[in-house]
Amino acid sequence: MKSEHSVPTMKDVAKEAGVALGTVSKVVNGIPVGESYRLRVEEAIKKLNYQVNSYAQGLKASKTYTVALLIPNTEEPFFASLVYHINLALLRRKYRMLLCSTDFDSDQEQEYVTMAQQNKVDGIIGLTYNPHLQIEENTPFVAIDRSMGTKIPCVASDNFAGGQLAAEKLADLGCTNVAFLRIGSSLDNEPNKRKAGFENGCLSRGLSYEMKILNDGDAYEEFESFLSEHIQDGKLSFDGIFCVTDRLAYLIIKTLRKLNLRVPEDVQVIGFDGIRPFQGTEYICSTIVQPVPEIAEMCVNLLLQENLSSKPPLVCLPVTYAYGGTTREPDSLFIRIS
Amino acid sequence: MKSEHSVPTMKDVAKEAGVALGTVSKVVNGIPVGESYRLRVEEAIKKLNYQVNSYAQGLKASKTYTVALLIPNTEEPFFASLVYHINLALLRRKYRMLLCSTDFDSDQEQEYVTMAQQNKVDGIIGLTYNPHLQIEENTPFVAIDRSMGTKIPCVASDNFAGGQLAAEKLADLGCTNVAFLRIGSSLDNEPNKRKAGFENGCLSRGLSYEMKILNDGDAYEEFESFLSEHIQDGKLSFDGIFCVTDRLAYLIIKTLRKLNLRVPEDVQVIGFDGIRPFQGTEYICSTIVQPVPEIAEMCVNLLLQENLSSKPPLVCLPVTYAYGGTTREPDSLFIRIS
Repeated sequence: MKSEHSVPTMKDVAKEAGVALGTVSKVVNGIPVGESYRLRVEEAIKKLNYQVNSYAQGLKASKTYTVALLIPNTEEPFFASLVYHINLALLRRKYRMLLCSTDFDSDQEQEYVTMAQQNKVDGIIGLTYNPHLQIEENTPFVAIDRSMGTKIPCVASDNFAGGQLAAEKLADLGCTNVAFLRIGSSLDNEPNKRKAGFENGCLSRGLSYEMKILNDGDAYEEFESFLSEHIQDGKLSFDGIFCVTDRLAYLIIKTLRKLNLRVPEDVQVIGFDGIRPFQGTEYICSTIVQPVPEIAEMCVNLLLQENLSSKPPLVCLPVTYAYGGTTREPDSLFIRIS
Repeated sequence: MKSEHSVPTMKDVAKEAGVALGTVSKVVNGIPVGESYRLRVEEAIKKLNYQVNSYAQGLKASKTYTVALLIPNTEEPFFASLVYHINLALLRRKYRMLLCSTDFDSDQEQEYVTMAQQNKVDGIIGLTYNPHLQIEENTPFVAIDRSMGTKIPCVASDNFAGGQLAAEKLADLGCTNVAFLRIGSSLDNEPNKRKAGFENGCLSRGLSYEMKILNDGDAYEEFESFLSEHIQDGKLSFDGIFCVTDRLAYLIIKTLRKLNLRVPEDVQVIGFDGIRPFQGTEYICSTIVQPVPEIAEMCVNLLLQENLSSKPPLVCLPVTYAYGGTTREPDSLFIRIS
């Protein structure tokens, strides 16, 4: 027995959904349309089992339906999570993703930028602290966390608001004298705004604070000395610490324990990123959570939206606070207050 | 001023290195040659600044110099590490990597297999528990951890030896009554051999042991009941536990603490995988470490070696034990013995 179904076309989908052909095309290509249109088209695609043919599309529009992702590595959990959600966002739109994860190999990164300029990939999403990377202004590129030029959109968490939120949380949790610890790139970047936000939050809530700022390459041991210098009679002068990343918070908590200080009883610690040691487990510390799925969606949307007359230079997405065992629990706080 | 350098060719490299043209070709394409030949060719490539032109090669050999990686997700740390090292191994050979990380989306995974069959990618490296994936025998495919057919090579850690090593370590560390805890896929796979290896190790070292085996989808709480049932007068009857993954070990250690048991004082715990919470930090628990960089290299070598007359059906790579705070330290052990 042979089946004699004819293969459904985009026209069939338009007819089934009761929309214009252009609307179907937009939905298929991930270009935003009204929500009700999108739902009708998606329902029709499902009902007719319409298969988007990326290759045929590629030939017609000289598109590759391929996007490259530049990211330092996929072992560091925050990067691993970004890779996962960007990959999903692209696959949902029938785009393929080339991964270039090289711990800042300038030559490799530059090669992918050249591919984008030669239309061998449709565009690039890049998180890179490579100061040598050359990107022409008309290259389809969306940056994460660090601006790569005035014509290139940059997507990041609202890092300033996150720093502010950390200060406010520490104040809410009863802290009065807090510290900010930071180690990272000395290049201009969005995560650096966490410091300014934290200072702002401390000032508005009347917290006294100190800062210890190191650059990549500085010895971690300086944090240990800094903390040791602030211990008198076994007591740390800070009752709250905000660390610029969960990675740093993790190391600082180990150091505090080595110095016979209890977390969160003696000092509460808040990190930044929202890292879990394994998928679905609890946060590794109390933290300001970056909206990774939303960052991924925004990057892909900005990269693939061709009809956008002007792309926004900087998009900041909202962060949230999450309890992760290194601050006082809301319950225990209640008991302490009552 | 114009520079008049001529672009170096593969012939120039062969002349500079004093080797045959075919040897240069093999090195450029990642096909193994004698170590001294490889070093000479690489030195000549560096000296002449010879640029491998993947696109030109692609046209001549109808190759895409692109390999697809199928992997459940990149958020789970073991997968994130595999992605990183496979990406590096491919980029070193001037191959690009398409990432398909979809938590077992059958349709997406099948699409990449079809691409390989149509020569739209040169091959696939796949770690998948998708029981519906159809792979023809002649598809260039290298599997990780789970055999995908008799003609498809499978690369894995030596899981049997790893299980055995865990039992031997627990015996060395003074344990006499141990448990094996496992949750995972019920499909045939290499990691399942950890159980048999552990049993073998227990028998050869005279350890008494019990097993608790759950399948994906079973409630984790069954482990908690199992452990509770083995507590009498606040004391756990097991003095050592081997968990099938570091992920499970992490959850079990939390449960043990909830049950007022100290790790490693009351019970020592060994996991499997070699996970660190962040790059460069200590292991999350004492563990059997999988050789991820070596697994990545082996997968890429097997996939790209075209002249291999017969590909090995199963390659098992050696594992090692690493201390991670949840077993007695060698030092403390020494003190206890003396």
